[in-house]
Amino acid sequence: MFEERIRCADLRSRVMSADQAAALISDGMTVGMSGFTRAGDAKVIPFAMAERARRDPFRITLLTGASLGNDVDRTLTEAGVLARRLPFQSDATLRKAINRGEVMFVDQHLSETVEQLRTHQIGPVDIAVIEAIAINADGSIVPTTSIGNSASFAILAEKIIVEINLTQPLELEGLHDVYIPRRRPHRMPIPLTDPSDRIGETAIPVPPEKIAAIVVSEKADSASTILPADAETAAIANHLIEFFEHEVRRGRLTTSLLPLQAGIGTIANAVLSGFIHSPFHGLTMYSEVLQDSTFELFDAGRLDFASGSSITLSAETYRRVFADIGRYKSRLVLRPQEVSNHPEVIRRLGIIALNTALEADIYGNVNSTHVLGTHMMNGIGGSGDFARNAYMAIFATKSIAKDGRISSIVPMVSHCDHNEHDVDILVTEQGLADLRGLAPRERAAVIIERCAHPQYRDLLRDYYKDAVTHIGGQTPHRLERAFEMHVRFRETGSMLASTAEAAA
Amino acid sequence: MFEERIRCADLRSRVMSADQAAALISDGMTVGMSGFTRAGDAKVIPFAMAERARRDPFRITLLTGASLGNDVDRTLTEAGVLARRLPFQSDATLRKAINRGEVMFVDQHLSETVEQLRTHQIGPVDIAVIEAIAINADGSIVPTTSIGNSASFAILAEKIIVEINLTQPLELEGLHDVYIPRRRPHRMPIPLTDPSDRIGETAIPVPPEKIAAIVVSEKADSASTILPADAETAAIANHLIEFFEHEVRRGRLTTSLLPLQAGIGTIANAVLSGFIHSPFHGLTMYSEVLQDSTFELFDAGRLDFASGSSITLSAETYRRVFADIGRYKSRLVLRPQEVSNHPEVIRRLGIIALNTALEADIYGNVNSTHVLGTHMMNGIGGSGDFARNAYMAIFATKSIAKDGRISSIVPMVSHCDHNEHDVDILVTEQGLADLRGLAPRERAAVIIERCAHPQYRDLLRDYYKDAVTHIGGQTPHRLERAFEMHVRFRETGSMLASTAEAAA
Repeated sequence: MFEERIRCADLRSRVMSADQAAALISDGMTVGMSGFTRAGDAKVIPFAMAERARRDPFRITLLTGASLGNDVDRTLTEAGVLARRLPFQSDATLRKAINRGEVMFVDQHLSETVEQLRTHQIGPVDIAVIEAIAINADGSIVPTTSIGNSASFAILAEKIIVEINLTQPLELEGLHDVYIPRRRPHRMPIPLTDPSDRIGETAIPVPPEKIAAIVVSEKADSASTILPADAETAAIANHLIEFFEHEVRRGRLTTSLLPLQAGIGTIANAVLSGFIHSPFHGLTMYSEVLQDSTFELFDAGRLDFASGSSITLSAETYRRVFADIGRYKSRLVLRPQEVSNHPEVIRRLGIIALNTALEADIYGNVNSTHVLGTHMMNGIGGSGDFARNAYMAIFATKSIAKDGRISSIVPMVSHCDHNEHDVDILVTEQGLADLRGLAPRERAAVIIERCAHPQYRDLLRDYYKDAVTHIGGQTPHRLERAFEMHVRFRETGSMLASTAEAAA
Repeated sequence: MFEERIRCADLRSRVMSADQAAALISDGMTVGMSGFTRAGDAKVIPFAMAERARRDPFRITLLTGASLGNDVDRTLTEAGVLARRLPFQSDATLRKAINRGEVMFVDQHLSETVEQLRTHQIGPVDIAVIEAIAINADGSIVPTTSIGNSASFAILAEKIIVEINLTQPLELEGLHDVYIPRRRPHRMPIPLTDPSDRIGETAIPVPPEKIAAIVVSEKADSASTILPADAETAAIANHLIEFFEHEVRRGRLTTSLLPLQAGIGTIANAVLSGFIHSPFHGLTMYSEVLQDSTFELFDAGRLDFASGSSITLSAETYRRVFADIGRYKSRLVLRPQEVSNHPEVIRRLGIIALNTALEADIYGNVNSTHVLGTHMMNGIGGSGDFARNAYMAIFATKSIAKDGRISSIVPMVSHCDHNEHDVDILVTEQGLADLRGLAPRERAAVIIERCAHPQYRDLLRDYYKDAVTHIGGQTPHRLERAFEMHVRFRETGSMLASTAEAAA
């Protein structure tokens, strides 16, 4: 039974029902599950856990790679299973529980979770639940559409439950490159000098006796939720392409640019798609998540190689790509998120990092996580890993949200995930601000004039002028007015001053 | 003449007066000068520049390693020479000019300046002014008490002026390890796996024809300005030593800990000195600046090896150490700040990073640069390079300043240099908050109860309770009240509520 998928004969006796396997997980445990940006998540154990918890409540700490699909976070939240969750999530129900203070959410850089686990600063991991296409004869586990933190979870956990997913094609085998840095003080350089380098194993090395249970699933990955490009995302893409052309003319970049990273989501995907009709070619990606745009760029002959930690596609692109995965496989590699997001590799390769801002301030600080400074959206994800170590850190956002009632450019960010030191380029559909080598007072001018929406420019200019006149400093602020726009939004539903106020 | 110091005979004809050499520098140029934490700064050219500017005004962009001694920044500021300054400074006069908006100060991570220069994102460097103990027969330059950015400035500049400093002992030769990462895309891993590894040259490789002028100086490095330990810094040191003992008992660290980094200043120096009377031994440092405490730890037999980018000592320790430098030399190395602060090496070695906070908030965000959110103190320096990539990032501050009229723990930092994702441990003389694995609401409780000064705890508790009750969220805040304490200080001279207010 499942000989092709469970190649270690001894392990075939450990195939059991999801309920039986989930019984290994008990109250107070720390569980590490596979899954990164909806790809390769454990898909049956979490539901068995939720079902049991409805009858017999228990709570756990849940670690993953990044966000999960298949409503796993929602189901576990509704069943009351989650006491603590890290390092990332993007589920509406879980988000509400986090913001009510019911689930403790530890929002971490995606490269750091396993470093902290390995050094026992958090953890230990009691059980790992890993989706796999197969288990090899030596017990090693072949992941599916993501690696994320799965390798370290499996290596560090006391016991492992493997979900063999029959819908994930065996052709994925060979796509993965599992490299785990050694423990300090014996750690060597990561021998990766090109996005296409393979430096590890194709499966997660674990002794077969640690695999306590195997369950079989046939549930597909959830499709990505990105929206199609619109006029604003197209404008953002155009500003960036023009900017890169300018950089090439200045001799700073070649037409192959440098390896690209793009955060998950509609804007980053649209920008990458924008390269299809551009003078750039021979591109490479060294990113976390590979989205539809990666495969569009392959098909358009623009992209030579893509390294990531997961593949997350729309339903249509998924069908097209996975029906013909052999065509792409030699130009793809999936890595542990610790390696895809490693400061060492990012600084060495010189990544062009493109991430999304929730809001940015006139001095170039970026909030990527907290709505109105308090309510968690998804988490910082890998944006910090990349922005801080990149050749160039770009943050993109539409200049307004909610039909203009919110300005994404504000006097002071209400939460700071990326500060002035790490934001090189800020771009909205209005234009692009090149902040390299500029002092804060200079940044304010270019951000207000190039990135802010025209209907907010006067408000921002007035704030800045008032701050310079009355307070001054390296970074002029009127602290009593710094969040005036945010507070006005909460009170009136719009950051815009009423006509009466504006005239006053 | 100076055969021992100028070993390339052809270059001896280029010895000239400081005025003659300074004439090479003209209006609008970008000048890269040696100097890191007051050590190894150019000491005569800047004064010749200032003198000329008083007669014949000109302005430049000045790049250095970090802060300068010898009142160089003050003198250049007063002479109106500085149009733009990066990446760090700590001079009272320059600071005022920066805060008036007269000098554009670009506050950068110390590891990043030369990356941006090398890729032409800033610059180019017209002239490098480098203090040296000697020039070798092949033209290579032997630095003095710091390397900082000197190597890359010299390599990238069109012309070089060398200041041969006769007061800097020739015995320093061999102390330096000049390694420069190659240009991308051909960059290899930095082959450094132990703080004591030597991976480069002992001098800065430049062709002799680039050395346009040599001036001779006899001015000593400025002494460090650190203050002796006091009751509060001793208490901070004790909390940290107890914490490390706890970590050893938990099996997370050995009694040799991991390589230590300590930011410049009184608190970090006092904490390191605290290790003299502790159970720890076989310690190593992988830091930027080596202060008095480094040599106290050598003398006490606690420290095995120290890697830095500069040596900055009090006058007394300077005399003692430099009279006997041979005794220490085999246990010391100075590196370019790009290497001492490199994310790759910091993450690989697993540094314990100790830096100073100006203020921290109840959620563990840290302001290390801006007084009241607006006025620059010194700059972020290397604190971000280390904190973001460290095994453990510790931030220390006294809980109050100005006789209690300022609380270093506030509801929200008025400027964010290090955010919640990068602050593992916060320590004041009151106590230590271990923030690892905690969500923001949990952090608030430990920071208020363990780190805040008792006279501010009620104010902070009230703010937190109000924010949780009225707003909630992952990180509860009342934006309209977030800077109430800062504004009160500006208006009344104290962050404390008056008795009447407190009772209301």
